[in-house]
Amino acid sequence: MVEKVLERVDRELDHSVERLFELLRIASISTDPAYQQDCRAAALWCADALGEIGFDASVRETQGLPIVVGHAGRGKPGPHVLFYGHYDVQPPDPLALWETPPFEPRRASSADGSEIIVARGASDDKGQLMTFLEACRAFKDDEGDIPVPVTVLLEGEEECGSKSLEPFIAANEDELKADVALVCDTAMWNAETPAITSMLRGLLLEEVIVTAASRDLHSGMFGGPALNPIHVLALIIAGLHGEGGRVVLPDFYDGVGELPDEVRAQWEGLDFDETKFLADIGLGAPAGEADRGVLEKLWSRPTCDVNGIIGGYTGEGSKTVIPAKASAKFSFRLVGGQDPERISKSFREFVRARLPVGCTAEFIRHGGDAAISFSLDGPYFEAARKGLAEEFGKEAALIGCGGSIPIVGSFKRRLKMDSLLVGFGLDDDRIHSPNEKYNLSSFHHGIRSWVRILDALKSV
Amino acid sequence: MVEKVLERVDRELDHSVERLFELLRIASISTDPAYQQDCRAAALWCADALGEIGFDASVRETQGLPIVVGHAGRGKPGPHVLFYGHYDVQPPDPLALWETPPFEPRRASSADGSEIIVARGASDDKGQLMTFLEACRAFKDDEGDIPVPVTVLLEGEEECGSKSLEPFIAANEDELKADVALVCDTAMWNAETPAITSMLRGLLLEEVIVTAASRDLHSGMFGGPALNPIHVLALIIAGLHGEGGRVVLPDFYDGVGELPDEVRAQWEGLDFDETKFLADIGLGAPAGEADRGVLEKLWSRPTCDVNGIIGGYTGEGSKTVIPAKASAKFSFRLVGGQDPERISKSFREFVRARLPVGCTAEFIRHGGDAAISFSLDGPYFEAARKGLAEEFGKEAALIGCGGSIPIVGSFKRRLKMDSLLVGFGLDDDRIHSPNEKYNLSSFHHGIRSWVRILDALKSV
Repeated sequence: MVEKVLERVDRELDHSVERLFELLRIASISTDPAYQQDCRAAALWCADALGEIGFDASVRETQGLPIVVGHAGRGKPGPHVLFYGHYDVQPPDPLALWETPPFEPRRASSADGSEIIVARGASDDKGQLMTFLEACRAFKDDEGDIPVPVTVLLEGEEECGSKSLEPFIAANEDELKADVALVCDTAMWNAETPAITSMLRGLLLEEVIVTAASRDLHSGMFGGPALNPIHVLALIIAGLHGEGGRVVLPDFYDGVGELPDEVRAQWEGLDFDETKFLADIGLGAPAGEADRGVLEKLWSRPTCDVNGIIGGYTGEGSKTVIPAKASAKFSFRLVGGQDPERISKSFREFVRARLPVGCTAEFIRHGGDAAISFSLDGPYFEAARKGLAEEFGKEAALIGCGGSIPIVGSFKRRLKMDSLLVGFGLDDDRIHSPNEKYNLSSFHHGIRSWVRILDALKSV
Repeated sequence: MVEKVLERVDRELDHSVERLFELLRIASISTDPAYQQDCRAAALWCADALGEIGFDASVRETQGLPIVVGHAGRGKPGPHVLFYGHYDVQPPDPLALWETPPFEPRRASSADGSEIIVARGASDDKGQLMTFLEACRAFKDDEGDIPVPVTVLLEGEEECGSKSLEPFIAANEDELKADVALVCDTAMWNAETPAITSMLRGLLLEEVIVTAASRDLHSGMFGGPALNPIHVLALIIAGLHGEGGRVVLPDFYDGVGELPDEVRAQWEGLDFDETKFLADIGLGAPAGEADRGVLEKLWSRPTCDVNGIIGGYTGEGSKTVIPAKASAKFSFRLVGGQDPERISKSFREFVRARLPVGCTAEFIRHGGDAAISFSLDGPYFEAARKGLAEEFGKEAALIGCGGSIPIVGSFKRRLKMDSLLVGFGLDDDRIHSPNEKYNLSSFHHGIRSWVRILDALKSV
């Protein structure tokens, strides 16, 4: 029977893409208040799409942007699964680098001949969440219903800290609790090899605003004795990494363990090409800890990065100003048992200790979650492994993920529920960057994989 | 005889103020194209005023706003002087903060009891340039002519970059070349103490754009092995200053001499309050070279400042991006014999040497002028010193200026001519700000000072 559903997926693919395009046209940029109405429009669109395929779905208000929840297959035998995705996207800046407007999705051919879908959110996460919705649609259209009880949870603040999600889960525990969560926001190992992600780095976000003088100063009239907050900030940033690329914050590496031998062996078997990985992003050599491999640095080592800095005059030409303020946004990727609160405290102390007399720092916290990992056995894991192996004709790689997926922590903490992280993105999808894309094959395999996984879950 | 001219200045003061008011009523805002006709009207007014007092004066077209040139006293014995001023003014914004309309000049009493003239341009530079024109008028009315050959050069783009001035000077070298330039656009040391500015710092402007990856990267997916250009830039900035606040660029201090003892003694005698200077701009302690005083740092020590920096995401909230590029605008204030070209080269080598493998830097040069200083002997300086001492009953302070005055460089480079920087502004004149004022005593002393200086120049 699953074969018939898969055939329908194949037949319907162009219509599936059309539906994805509808969602991609909505500029649901959650971090920018100017796009609040667009975010609401995206939520409404998702609830409508779920309603169309038999879900009892609604847009639920929060303190921030709304959350979409839908239920289907109630009373069916088999495990109850909670599917998670997010309808919001990153800002498209810098706009000038897009070949076509970010919210006008298009199909194109990439240099390697593969068909792609280009738009902000094509991969992260609209394309990914639509693989699941389209799989459900195929079941609904072919069999009249989805094979197992399914709850869909789509948030709109994933790209700006997911502030409303945790309170929403806390307030709706009974409604959302399921046997396992399916989270579709990760990547495949490569275009031929699916992956299940079992380790996720955590994330701490800190913004620092350094203030020196009480007003902007003329660099001729005041330059020399006047403190420059850009210099102060540069010294702080430059001082965060020490010998061998290690982060020098006190206690930073507490809770960071060495990789177990079997995990290291499995990763070494992945045949990862460090040089190609770096060359693909235009880099000739790796940064970071000198004594670690690239995969290890990405999946199981912590980082400290500045994601943004601004101060003084940044327009065309020059302006001889010593600014009153300069600011930077820092992020820390966390692994193992690293405690975000402790690192936040250590960071702020580090910054304060480096402020010259007469200089002040203001701190803004944008988020903080510890790292997470899952065990690689149990029936749900097995269903996902089997479904992916059948679809791709090869075993899924069991990988780590350098990015954080905070929802996975909330599911674990709040709902005592593990997550299966299965996604169909590719490393070259340019998520968060101009000209974001999703391979048509990712979209197609993704839908078919969910059909197989849902089918396999039925027998658990 | 000079006593008779000075008496006439005193008698005529109210009329002099009336004439200044006529010029102040013209809204010659050069940076705003809407006021182009007002700028032309101001130029015409100046040419007419010069014509009235015997100058062969005309309004000369340029690519931008016109320049007024007038000649008088041709064939007289004594040195030929070129007087420079500017008839344009800053925009009056924010208008709401003006107590009376900016282009309706009025006489008023300030809080400390001194009589003041309030209007945009009252000090910068209409009040200042009119001190010279009124001095010439007094000579003309009393003696029938000006005692030495004088050329007056009044530009209309000083407040918006003086773009037309250098080409105009280049095209009219023979006409403008004189023995010495008199520039009236600076301040007194305080209300009782005149000043001659004899040192101007130079200025080198360099922008650096650092590129790491070929595109912006997700800090989760790439953070660790991916090079962050903000870190690279921070290390460069942090590395530019070393122990004791000195700039570490090789050869940077070549040509930077120690202050002559007599200059140091003179500056120490100026009774400058470092603490108040810093407190006025909200700073509790001085930055820069640890072993130098504030005045020394402002007037006779070089600097390296970052005037602007930008990279990554700088909007509200957070974005987990590792940007492909980051850039910063650097300025170097130069003194003594520092060579901008050599420092530019040293700076660029310094930056290149700190680029990790796979990282590139692009450089943009926004300008470079060496410092200028004038010898404190010689007959023209002596004439100015003597005239000011007689007028104020005390010796002029011989001061530096931390900023550059580009016209002085043009005169030196193009016309091989030194400048005497003598002005009568005060630090509290609120130039470029609402309620700009010029003390009546500045105006009166200014006219009388020029009478004395011109008289003294006659005997050179």
